Amino acid sequence: MTYCVGMLLDRGLVFMSDTRTNSGVDNISTYRKMFTWKRPGERVITLLTVGNLATTQAVVSLLDERTKAPGERQPSMLDAPTMFQAARVVGELSREAIRTTLDKGQSAESQFSATFILGGQIRGMPPRLFMIYPEGNFIEATPETPFFQAGEMKYGRPILVRSFDAAMSFEDAVKLLLVSFDSTIKANLSVGAPLDLQIVTRDAFDVTHHRRIAADDPYFMRISSGWGDALKKAFAALPDYSLD
Amino acid sequence: MTYCVGMLLDRGLVFMSDTRTNSGVDNISTYRKMFTWKRPGERVITLLTVGNLATTQAVVSLLDERTKAPGERQPSMLDAPTMFQAARVVGELSREAIRTTLDKGQSAESQFSATFILGGQIRGMPPRLFMIYPEGNFIEATPETPFFQAGEMKYGRPILVRSFDAAMSFEDAVKLLLVSFDSTIKANLSVGAPLDLQIVTRDAFDVTHHRRIAADDPYFMRISSGWGDALKKAFAALPDYSLD
Repeated sequence: MTYCVGMLLDRGLVFMSDTRTNSGVDNISTYRKMFTWKRPGERVITLLTVGNLATTQAVVSLLDERTKAPGERQPSMLDAPTMFQAARVVGELSREAIRTTLDKGQSAESQFSATFILGGQIRGMPPRLFMIYPEGNFIEATPETPFFQAGEMKYGRPILVRSFDAAMSFEDAVKLLLVSFDSTIKANLSVGAPLDLQIVTRDAFDVTHHRRIAADDPYFMRISSGWGDALKKAFAALPDYSLD
Repeated sequence: MTYCVGMLLDRGLVFMSDTRTNSGVDNISTYRKMFTWKRPGERVITLLTVGNLATTQAVVSLLDERTKAPGERQPSMLDAPTMFQAARVVGELSREAIRTTLDKGQSAESQFSATFILGGQIRGMPPRLFMIYPEGNFIEATPETPFFQAGEMKYGRPILVRSFDAAMSFEDAVKLLLVSFDSTIKANLSVGAPLDLQIVTRDAFDVTHHRRIAADDPYFMRISSGWGDALKKAFAALPDYSLD
């Protein structure tokens, strides 16, 4: 499994993804699931990947044009005229990668599927955020649905739904994401640290903050233990049930 | 879907279940999923049902011996010498009900499956709590795993894991269950009020408290709105992230 979130705030975009990949519980690895293409001052595009690792790696390699020599590569993410076109490219490559595997005689389609969260900003246009499905189609974040979760989303969803506010600061957004990831990591072994964090400030056309947060990161540990205590206090403050 | 929880506390058992049954989002009904057999002063046994409604109704009818005339019925739950035997009976009837449907030519086994939470106490023995799988086998709650969730369990799990304490009062247990159910109902349309609540005090050999909690129940509404505020305060009290 995997857990990834992309948020569209008034002040820009925030992305977080875990790094655990597993094939059964007895075969666990760490892989980056956050990829960025940028031309500072003009565009920055970030992709979060969820699903079959062979499929998502194939998509990222195709986007990077890794079949070509390094000097001849022209990643399509840097050429897309709009974020909408960038989402379309990702969707098409994803469908192609899944189809290629299936054509080789594999039948379990769902095993090879992948989902993506794509966000970024290109000069002259506002920041945009998309969720791209295995079928290659996609939806865009709107004021009513300003964030996307992919992968193991249920454990960490209630706190996001209750506390998300598009006007919140980047600091609060990171804190909220860490609470949501902490609940998920505690509940599902197939989601694990380190976590990748990236912030893209509106109209900066560059990554303005990024960090890899380890399981023993002091701030993450304070959030994780502090949240347990804070929940207990919040629970105690609720009115008591009466058995009468 | 459905959401059911059974808790084994030091002072007894607490059960809660929702009542929504759906076949698609356009066909929603209300059905009780909590059933009790008792001989006051000697035993009380409660069953929570999750899964295909035809299967769970068949199991409850078989347990009630509804094929016989009312005067001739001798529900097996009232005859089982131990809670372990009661769990075995439920498991066998469940497997039988699923098999009967499949023998009629249905092939989608998972569609007809059902899961049960069974708890209760028989004189001379401590209260016991079981989770019974579609295959008919079962596991028992222990001090390390003192509660079972069935159905749509993920949204409401983090708060249970963080706040459950086997020594807690019944009042706190009900409050905790309502917070957990509220998060689930807010996230999954196929879980819905009214909620059935039942408390079985240790060594009372009877239901000591039961209530049907409607969506507009004043206490439930206070918990639901109060929890949103309490979470916001808890979140604000956590240390802030620094972008530096």
